[in-house]
Amino acid sequence: MVRRDLLSTDRYLAPGGPRARELYDTIAGLPIVSPHTHVDAELFAAGARLDPPGRLFVGSDHYVLRLLYSRGIALERLGAAPRDGGPHETDDRAVWRLFARHIDLFAATPTGLWLRDTLEHVFGIEERLTPSSADAIYDQVERQLASPAFAPMALLDRFRIECLGTTDPAGSTLAAHAGLAPRIRPTFRPDAVVALDDPGWRSALAALEAAAGREIDDHDAFLDALAERRAAFRELGATATDHAATSADTSRLPAAEVASIFGAALAGTITEAAARRFEAHMLNEFARQSLEDGLVMQLHIGSLRDHNSALAARFGRDVGGDIPVATDWTRGLRPLLDELGNDARLQLVLYTLDESTYSRELAPLAGHYPSVALGSPWWFHDSPGGIERFLDRVTETAGLANLAGFVDDARSLVAVPVRHDLWRRQVCVWLARKAAAGIVDEDDAPRLARELAYDLARRTFRLDRQTPE
Amino acid sequence: MVRRDLLSTDRYLAPGGPRARELYDTIAGLPIVSPHTHVDAELFAAGARLDPPGRLFVGSDHYVLRLLYSRGIALERLGAAPRDGGPHETDDRAVWRLFARHIDLFAATPTGLWLRDTLEHVFGIEERLTPSSADAIYDQVERQLASPAFAPMALLDRFRIECLGTTDPAGSTLAAHAGLAPRIRPTFRPDAVVALDDPGWRSALAALEAAAGREIDDHDAFLDALAERRAAFRELGATATDHAATSADTSRLPAAEVASIFGAALAGTITEAAARRFEAHMLNEFARQSLEDGLVMQLHIGSLRDHNSALAARFGRDVGGDIPVATDWTRGLRPLLDELGNDARLQLVLYTLDESTYSRELAPLAGHYPSVALGSPWWFHDSPGGIERFLDRVTETAGLANLAGFVDDARSLVAVPVRHDLWRRQVCVWLARKAAAGIVDEDDAPRLARELAYDLARRTFRLDRQTPE
Amino acid sequence: MVRRDLLSTDRYLAPGGPRARELYDTIAGLPIVSPHTHVDAELFAAGARLDPPGRLFVGSDHYVLRLLYSRGIALERLGAAPRDGGPHETDDRAVWRLFARHIDLFAATPTGLWLRDTLEHVFGIEERLTPSSADAIYDQVERQLASPAFAPMALLDRFRIECLGTTDPAGSTLAAHAGLAPRIRPTFRPDAVVALDDPGWRSALAALEAAAGREIDDHDAFLDALAERRAAFRELGATATDHAATSADTSRLPAAEVASIFGAALAGTITEAAARRFEAHMLNEFARQSLEDGLVMQLHIGSLRDHNSALAARFGRDVGGDIPVATDWTRGLRPLLDELGNDARLQLVLYTLDESTYSRELAPLAGHYPSVALGSPWWFHDSPGGIERFLDRVTETAGLANLAGFVDDARSLVAVPVRHDLWRRQVCVWLARKAAAGIVDEDDAPRLARELAYDLARRTFRLDRQTPE
Repeated sequence: MVRRDLLSTDRYLAPGGPRARELYDTIAGLPIVSPHTHVDAELFAAGARLDPPGRLFVGSDHYVLRLLYSRGIALERLGAAPRDGGPHETDDRAVWRLFARHIDLFAATPTGLWLRDTLEHVFGIEERLTPSSADAIYDQVERQLASPAFAPMALLDRFRIECLGTTDPAGSTLAAHAGLAPRIRPTFRPDAVVALDDPGWRSALAALEAAAGREIDDHDAFLDALAERRAAFRELGATATDHAATSADTSRLPAAEVASIFGAALAGTITEAAARRFEAHMLNEFARQSLEDGLVMQLHIGSLRDHNSALAARFGRDVGGDIPVATDWTRGLRPLLDELGNDARLQLVLYTLDESTYSRELAPLAGHYPSVALGSPWWFHDSPGGIERFLDRVTETAGLANLAGFVDDARSLVAVPVRHDLWRRQVCVWLARKAAAGIVDEDDAPRLARELAYDLARRTFRLDRQTPE
Repeated sequence: MVRRDLLSTDRYLAPGGPRARELYDTIAGLPIVSPHTHVDAELFAAGARLDPPGRLFVGSDHYVLRLLYSRGIALERLGAAPRDGGPHETDDRAVWRLFARHIDLFAATPTGLWLRDTLEHVFGIEERLTPSSADAIYDQVERQLASPAFAPMALLDRFRIECLGTTDPAGSTLAAHAGLAPRIRPTFRPDAVVALDDPGWRSALAALEAAAGREIDDHDAFLDALAERRAAFRELGATATDHAATSADTSRLPAAEVASIFGAALAGTITEAAARRFEAHMLNEFARQSLEDGLVMQLHIGSLRDHNSALAARFGRDVGGDIPVATDWTRGLRPLLDELGNDARLQLVLYTLDESTYSRELAPLAGHYPSVALGSPWWFHDSPGGIERFLDRVTETAGLANLAGFVDDARSLVAVPVRHDLWRRQVCVWLARKAAAGIVDEDDAPRLARELAYDLARRTFRLDRQTPE
Repeated sequence: MVRRDLLSTDRYLAPGGPRARELYDTIAGLPIVSPHTHVDAELFAAGARLDPPGRLFVGSDHYVLRLLYSRGIALERLGAAPRDGGPHETDDRAVWRLFARHIDLFAATPTGLWLRDTLEHVFGIEERLTPSSADAIYDQVERQLASPAFAPMALLDRFRIECLGTTDPAGSTLAAHAGLAPRIRPTFRPDAVVALDDPGWRSALAALEAAAGREIDDHDAFLDALAERRAAFRELGATATDHAATSADTSRLPAAEVASIFGAALAGTITEAAARRFEAHMLNEFARQSLEDGLVMQLHIGSLRDHNSALAARFGRDVGGDIPVATDWTRGLRPLLDELGNDARLQLVLYTLDESTYSRELAPLAGHYPSVALGSPWWFHDSPGGIERFLDRVTETAGLANLAGFVDDARSLVAVPVRHDLWRRQVCVWLARKAAAGIVDEDDAPRLARELAYDLARRTFRLDRQTPE
């Protein structure tokens, strides 16, 4: 039996002994800085509310969908709508009940911990989710979600979220962002307009044209449009961009080749190989732009998107099983860093799904180049074990000052505080252990805890520098 | 000084505290499910007995041979017979004595632990093996091995082995398996007939022809013969197949190319590159067959066989130093999973020697595809540290329900119980620690311990489904 | 507050409990064997002294320079002289002060621990280095460095350094080594004369010609000159060679191709691809020479040198950011091991920056080939966490007897004792934990501690075998 009073205060801290709790107490009250989420800005419009429980905790959470799917549960039963309009579950409570029937799958997973902590600490529900408690818990959660206290803006206050970054396509008009900065800031994500061979490229480009208010008929016009949008994003408080790629390659191409590849894309004759070369080139190009306008550049490398083609064809992107691959950061980033890496006006933040690169490549890069910081453990590694391995493997070589602090990458606003809390607790366990071993000086531990919980994220994401007037 | 009474009951459990012992007590009495061994079915014929100590613990154990050889001890002195009929030690006691003289090499290795535990818990010998105790221990062990209590069938009962899988070439007649199922089941291993460029291919093919009772003069006949053998294996209780490859590549080839490559092999004009493409294709083909007949497909990937050519030439296969290489599971398995991975009639079990793929590739694959389960830590990783790293790295992403449970891969029947016991103890340490940290719910721990020790193996290997009448 | 008395005696030992301290007490008094350093033999000439504090602790320590540079501090301010003769800090105290201002960067890094331990245990300074204590500490350190008690030969005695290996280019005359053996021994490092496409190749070759006293006008003459130098190194006490390469490739080339490539280098028409093939071939060739003359061959693989070209161009080699890459030891070493690996007259010592190869490739290689030993955790991995991961990942497969013991790779003589002490303490923590878990026998622990601290290094580096008369 888990003692709930213990859970509430000391959870996850036991492996660090009493010192972990002492450290945690010094940082528990710090505001949350959350510069990287997938929360939608429209959620903060007047009258908007969070999704009901089934969609909030199941249908919109790819971690949950993955694990249920792996045990043979069709995505349609979890509320996912096939692109061909085929049948799927539309009763939110039914989705929740199905989830509760399989809740045992989530034992020992971070998803299970986030769920438990969110139910208890955001919704005040101490009862364990089981098939028999599912309905009662559904009612309690939904009642609260519909209440004014759970209006998204109210939650920001309650969660003490000081800053929240959304993620927005380059072609977004950012209409929903008006008036939200500096607390809520957009993040410039141009992946869709750079993926020249993706079926969605033309519509992404059309959105960019519309938002930038200019026709894009060649590569120069493309760069102009991107520049215009970057400025517009900055006007609305953006301090960062976000880029995903399978490979870390940043090889620069000759101008003529870039123009020719872009022309081929417009003409519908692009090849996959050319599209990949273009993506690599554009990572390099975006770094140049960041050096000039000061937007922090986040690089998420190493996920092979839509590994499961059949599922991607049936449901669209982001449900088709993204599976990591090995990443060669050292050779991949060399062209970019050779040109721009010594200039501290550039701030690169690197995220990986390949833990073998923590000590081999990422920590040495961050411990050398003034422009490089290491993003927090990402995706599958935002977990108790993932956090511990990250800190163990990068800090000895990179030091703590070259870390970017924590980002939660959350899709759901209610998950933000519990994810930060888990990070903070793991940080305190780690520091307490290192202090006990004599590897971290006791005197330094509280400062380091605060940096990891708060200061590093503010500094790395330049939240104090670029506030719109 | 190790307290032997402590060793007997609490060994390996200390890092998990008293809770580990409590958990262990709940599963210590469970029967052993051992679906993957290299024990020979002929051992269970009337009157057969286990090898004498030198051959049992030294000459037939590649872990022991490797480490002794690494310190400059010639394999001939350990009883290995060169292919050219050159001299080698034939006195079993002399092999045992040589082993005892070098017993210090095995400190901190799982081989050393298995030896100690087997001597104590199977043979009741608490004295430590040293050069001076070697002869007395030899006598005690050999006396027992020759006794009726150590008849292989009697040992199955004593060890409470509920199910034991052997590993048998595709061309095996399975003569020794008659009457042994469902307790002892064959496993279909077709590697030798798929390695078209291996010197042993023709004799393996001849065995397949003989067992299947048909001539194999083209690829269609080859597939027919394989199908016939799969059916015959199933008749005798098989629920699984086993496949080893250096690479995870599963690219399907056009039918014409497959036929042509197979024809070239028959004509003696096969190239190495073609042989590798054929192997990749056949992994894909075997998955199709498994989907149809329900045999669980085990894939052991990433060992470069016979790295030490000189030794392989002198002694034959499996002694020449198999050394692991990095594995690209994500891209390698994609062709197979794209076609068949969403169908839960297929059950793939993946084993790796590349730990960096645990969190990067294997856990994400198992945590998504309904057909994929993760095999237990394999070969060098079936060890205290290897088990801990495996559980740490895969469970957060894959969950525990996507694990295949434990297989011991043992060559020696007397090693089976101690290997399962070591796994069970490490599982309990791991669960107790996770429970203490608040990551596993105390209420869930006993259920998870039982699943890891017993239930998952039964379910994954479909032991309840396919029992011959 | 760290209790300094505790620091002095029990530091780093706490995670191993009281047993770690007991083990440590049994080995703390052993002499230091340090067969691999970058200490300059000229330091031991009459009247020579160690550098002043700024240069000793900052300017000559690439770990320190890297981390300061990563936070935007120009290398010129740390005393580094640009190759174009541009301005740079020449006031040693100013360099020290700048270091002290940024001392917080080194929290949780091995560099920070080595500094603290050196100040306390070599210089008797218990006060923490801070901006305000910087000047007083500078004075105390410099006063001691200038005193006779800190003469390098006196420090060897005080540190109980039994043997110290320097690292010397193939073209070194070893003038400074006269009379120093067997306590101080040169190490043969031919990298510079093998790097045919390096700008420094011709001057390195000229030095080799001068030292060997013969003209090198073709590859045969090159081999003759190398053989002459190896003999000269052995005369002065060398027992080992040292080789660095980005890749582990050891493919042998046909004699005609080798001669042709070498000729192209002499003619100034070498290509990068040919230079890499030549390097791989020469690793194989050096192994042959080692097999013949008994010099232990050390291989440091996996660092991509001068990743930061701009910095390398400005300051020269070894400051331009060396960043590790993934290493394929298994396929890379195969040509070498296939030919020579079974012959125990050859002693290879392998060092890696790619931790994913510990369990996947290095431990299996060392646990099989009689010629292979595993070098201690190298460079970024000579750290508390790095040592623990190394021992955890290699010993289960390779056993302890296939390890090479500890080498400190130190550039500064005063760092030698604290690095060995950190290794010894971590070893005792590791052994104490394994003993507590029942994985290492209590009876074996003191012997294993001694081997790891002392015996293995003496044996692997053949320090008892090859002493000049």
